[in-house]
Amino acid sequence: MKECRLAVGLMSGTSLDGIDAALVEIAGSGLSTRVKLKHFLSAPLEPEVAGRLLRIAAGKPFTSGELSQLNFLLGMLYSEAVLKVCKQAHIEVHQVDVIGSHGQTIYHQSEPRFICDRPVASTLQIGEASIIAERTGVTTVSDFRPRDMAAGGKGAPLIPYVDYLLFRDIRRGRILLNLGGIANLTSLPASARLSQISAFDTGPGNMVIDALVRHFTQGSKRFDPHGGIANSGKVIPPLLDDLLMDPYFGEQPPKTAGREQFGEAFVSKFLAYSRSAQFEDLVCTAVELTARTVADSICNHCKSPSLYQELIVSGGGAHNDFLLRRLAVLLPQMKILKTDDFGIPVSAKEAVGFAILANETMHLRPGNVPSATGAIRPVILGKVAVGKNPHWFRF
Amino acid sequence: MKECRLAVGLMSGTSLDGIDAALVEIAGSGLSTRVKLKHFLSAPLEPEVAGRLLRIAAGKPFTSGELSQLNFLLGMLYSEAVLKVCKQAHIEVHQVDVIGSHGQTIYHQSEPRFICDRPVASTLQIGEASIIAERTGVTTVSDFRPRDMAAGGKGAPLIPYVDYLLFRDIRRGRILLNLGGIANLTSLPASARLSQISAFDTGPGNMVIDALVRHFTQGSKRFDPHGGIANSGKVIPPLLDDLLMDPYFGEQPPKTAGREQFGEAFVSKFLAYSRSAQFEDLVCTAVELTARTVADSICNHCKSPSLYQELIVSGGGAHNDFLLRRLAVLLPQMKILKTDDFGIPVSAKEAVGFAILANETMHLRPGNVPSATGAIRPVILGKVAVGKNPHWFRF
Repeated sequence: MKECRLAVGLMSGTSLDGIDAALVEIAGSGLSTRVKLKHFLSAPLEPEVAGRLLRIAAGKPFTSGELSQLNFLLGMLYSEAVLKVCKQAHIEVHQVDVIGSHGQTIYHQSEPRFICDRPVASTLQIGEASIIAERTGVTTVSDFRPRDMAAGGKGAPLIPYVDYLLFRDIRRGRILLNLGGIANLTSLPASARLSQISAFDTGPGNMVIDALVRHFTQGSKRFDPHGGIANSGKVIPPLLDDLLMDPYFGEQPPKTAGREQFGEAFVSKFLAYSRSAQFEDLVCTAVELTARTVADSICNHCKSPSLYQELIVSGGGAHNDFLLRRLAVLLPQMKILKTDDFGIPVSAKEAVGFAILANETMHLRPGNVPSATGAIRPVILGKVAVGKNPHWFRF
Repeated sequence: MKECRLAVGLMSGTSLDGIDAALVEIAGSGLSTRVKLKHFLSAPLEPEVAGRLLRIAAGKPFTSGELSQLNFLLGMLYSEAVLKVCKQAHIEVHQVDVIGSHGQTIYHQSEPRFICDRPVASTLQIGEASIIAERTGVTTVSDFRPRDMAAGGKGAPLIPYVDYLLFRDIRRGRILLNLGGIANLTSLPASARLSQISAFDTGPGNMVIDALVRHFTQGSKRFDPHGGIANSGKVIPPLLDDLLMDPYFGEQPPKTAGREQFGEAFVSKFLAYSRSAQFEDLVCTAVELTARTVADSICNHCKSPSLYQELIVSGGGAHNDFLLRRLAVLLPQMKILKTDDFGIPVSAKEAVGFAILANETMHLRPGNVPSATGAIRPVILGKVAVGKNPHWFRF
């Protein structure tokens, strides 16, 4: 067993912006895991590929042929991202020990629905791992979510286990906040045991902000870099109060949110104000909604909120300085940090996470947090496609 | 490493008849593999499940939700088949070391087609292996075909490797003939090396015969048990001559066939004769077509046909005594045997095969035959979902 391993984590999120690839050096496994990012890139998805995936994920019908071809095509694009991140880092791909590929989620339904008279919850990611393993020669772990769901979990969130390995602290209570389209947090009390972790989606992260920016700029801007638009507006109190009435915010965790809750229908509540309000005020209100629901979640849904001293932010929303300032105001007892302060750029954290989850699988360690997903037990996540480096295995 | 292992092979074919489960004891691996069937069952698929799969495989549009739910549901049904075959054999499922699950093919296209401006060949099987591994607790290998295709192969046929392990002989040249919907053969010269194997689809096996029986009995019969219908008819020479002109039969192997070549359109050639000919004569002609194209394939497409002394038949068509008699007449130099003569019932052979392929994967051995699939190299097939028995692995 090597002391240090090279791993690549691949993440392509539901926003379909691109394929994130993180090349990391990992020492140890489990609680002894240490990780060092060597290189990170985000490869944009071709518009035609993104468009097809978007239609499929939106529930539009398609044929088995289209899906099968896309599954293989994505495997090829993921392989190219691996080769590219290695090349840019001046590392030969055969030196890489394992790849962890999240895949592209095209369906995720954690509440059972009936099919053929049976209640079935399911999740489906595509991006053929056999292609990745063959084209890179590197053993590839994929399909992490189905195993947690097979064990009765919601299949999400999976990053809390990584948060636990990398960010737990003996003396400081920490909350990890990822500001993606949806905002989610992992609370790690000081000296936390795995069973003490709670993790859930607080509500919208950037999803509503970005939707408003796209709408009012007719798509010429896709987000509000550093929060400049919001900073020039002001909160619309009746709109904010109305939004905060959404029942999701009052629900007890574990809970997950998505485009179903905070997509078009939710954004239309803002648009109803667009005659009487400035665009900047709507964006400012959306930022305030994210900040307020994060702060309220910490105060209302985390046990003993006073025990947390640090809020460590990641995700695209971590670039929004205005949002971070609002979080600092609403959570005066907490120090606001970014994952960059721990050597992991805010955009790379999820990709790094799947490299670490792959390393856990290869060490036959479970990678889910039952208290976060609802699974009945910790399970070894994923499926392993063996590369040209099978020295990792010995049966 | 245990000397003897218990394995379950799962096969559910494109005919959608049911889920075949073979419980076997396997000793060794590679050329030292020995296998003993302990129990076999075929669990029928519920009509609603079969109907949905049939529509999807036929290219009808569906949503990501339907596919995702079916993938998980099939995983559950496969798990139930594993539990059932163990129970009937009075074996505790936790004693089983590995499961090899072929999955349900919903798409297979070995010739590249363009998608998003790239040529892509692909194959897609469903039946979530994470569900099987979790519900049975047994390490499960699935998705065998994609890896061969990733290595440039056609992803089929995969059984020739199993034929090589189980049926090669030092002195006797043997041909393994599987009479499924499509008929395929594996030729194993005496003392064959892997590179000397050829394997290909000869043309229709039972597909055309069964289609005629279903058509003329309005579905009250699904096949011609033991060939009694064909036996009471006679060949229609002009029809047979016409059918034998199909360009597929003249093509050089490697070649694969399916419903595209020998489905409805092909059967309509028979139906055009139905005014002037008896039903029994049409069925008899279909049997003759299968027998002739098998015999011609051996004579024309196998190197040195005189070197083969035994024809070992498996698949549903092996029950068709009339077809076997015709083969014996057309191939007088060969002894006609069934796989039963070697301890493997004709219906169980493919399921046994995937148990053996899973055993090879767990021993980090390739399971494809490049001369049969066209792959550029032998590759370790499948993806491994780890069960509650990870003592198999040591990294």
